[in-house]
Amino acid sequence: MTPPAGEDAEAANPWTVRRADVRYDNRWIRVTHHDVLTPAGTPGIYGTVHFKNLAIGIIPVDDDGHTWLVGQYRFPLAAYSWEIPEGGGPHGVDPLESAARELAEETGLVAASWLPLIEMDLSNSVSDERAIAYMAWGLTQGAAAPEPTERLQQRRLPLGEVFAMVRGGVIRDALSVGALQALELRWRDGSLPPPVQRMLGPP
Amino acid sequence: MTPPAGEDAEAANPWTVRRADVRYDNRWIRVTHHDVLTPAGTPGIYGTVHFKNLAIGIIPVDDDGHTWLVGQYRFPLAAYSWEIPEGGGPHGVDPLESAARELAEETGLVAASWLPLIEMDLSNSVSDERAIAYMAWGLTQGAAAPEPTERLQQRRLPLGEVFAMVRGGVIRDALSVGALQALELRWRDGSLPPPVQRMLGPP
Repeated sequence: MTPPAGEDAEAANPWTVRRADVRYDNRWIRVTHHDVLTPAGTPGIYGTVHFKNLAIGIIPVDDDGHTWLVGQYRFPLAAYSWEIPEGGGPHGVDPLESAARELAEETGLVAASWLPLIEMDLSNSVSDERAIAYMAWGLTQGAAAPEPTERLQQRRLPLGEVFAMVRGGVIRDALSVGALQALELRWRDGSLPPPVQRMLGPP
Repeated sequence: MTPPAGEDAEAANPWTVRRADVRYDNRWIRVTHHDVLTPAGTPGIYGTVHFKNLAIGIIPVDDDGHTWLVGQYRFPLAAYSWEIPEGGGPHGVDPLESAARELAEETGLVAASWLPLIEMDLSNSVSDERAIAYMAWGLTQGAAAPEPTERLQQRRLPLGEVFAMVRGGVIRDALSVGALQALELRWRDGSLPPPVQRMLGPP
């Protein structure tokens, strides 16, 4: 059978599911084992991880061009990780509303202005986890209220230093990396909103 | 109990595992349910996904400053995705060796020169999946030999056009986004190896 070309090929799902069994389910993920026919028509299996929340990241920027990083031990990695403020937002809730809640919980910051920076699929060979990141400015400091199960550290740093942490491999979390690179690229080509461009100074 | 500050806090794992059960296992992933004490000392659960391969991405660049994208239907996302050439490399094998194999399989290209661009943790709230991306140049074209279960399309495009696809949200795969943005930033500040900087032209 000749596969359809171009746009048609992109529209069609070349996998056939013969049986699907949920093998694990908790508040955050659902793991399903599929018996499939592969795009080649041969029998195979596919284990997928469904994420029940959207991953949301926020880069807060203050009038001095500083931002906040959050440090925490990441249990799955068995490693400590410095990241932009992040959290999960329920599907069906405006991601901007979830972003404002997460930023307030982790840093106590409230932002007057928001700009979407990037959307990504984090690990598409196995999961359907989607992510969105924002820049937030016009900040007012309140009290942080992290989830009681979290043990977080915070650091306030010049954005230029944080960009260097990405380049130097100190920040490795994919959502943080993608968001910070996107912000740096827009800053360097001068395409950020003028007040933000001024806060960050000349590239 | 006062948590230790600074570096000490980063060294210590604040989670206690009381019981761990493997709930799903296949060639690519292993899912484990943990009964834990959270950093707050309260009982909780944590489901983790262990990845049996390193995620590897390659940006091949030819003498005209063009690169290759690979298109495929991503079963977990139920969506078509355009990405840099990617694949999995077994832990314990030199990632550069796996990268050369993946590039040849998906595009038929053999590269004389390689530069590591970025390393990332793709989804660290749930998984231990680690990724590395390279740029490859000094290309020779051979025959592609994709895995028979894959149905791939290929496109050769100017890198500038591909950078715009990231910015425009057309490329969403996190490994592709992180690698392409890393390359664009190095190109713009002139820090790529001189032959590559020449191949890409002035920013």
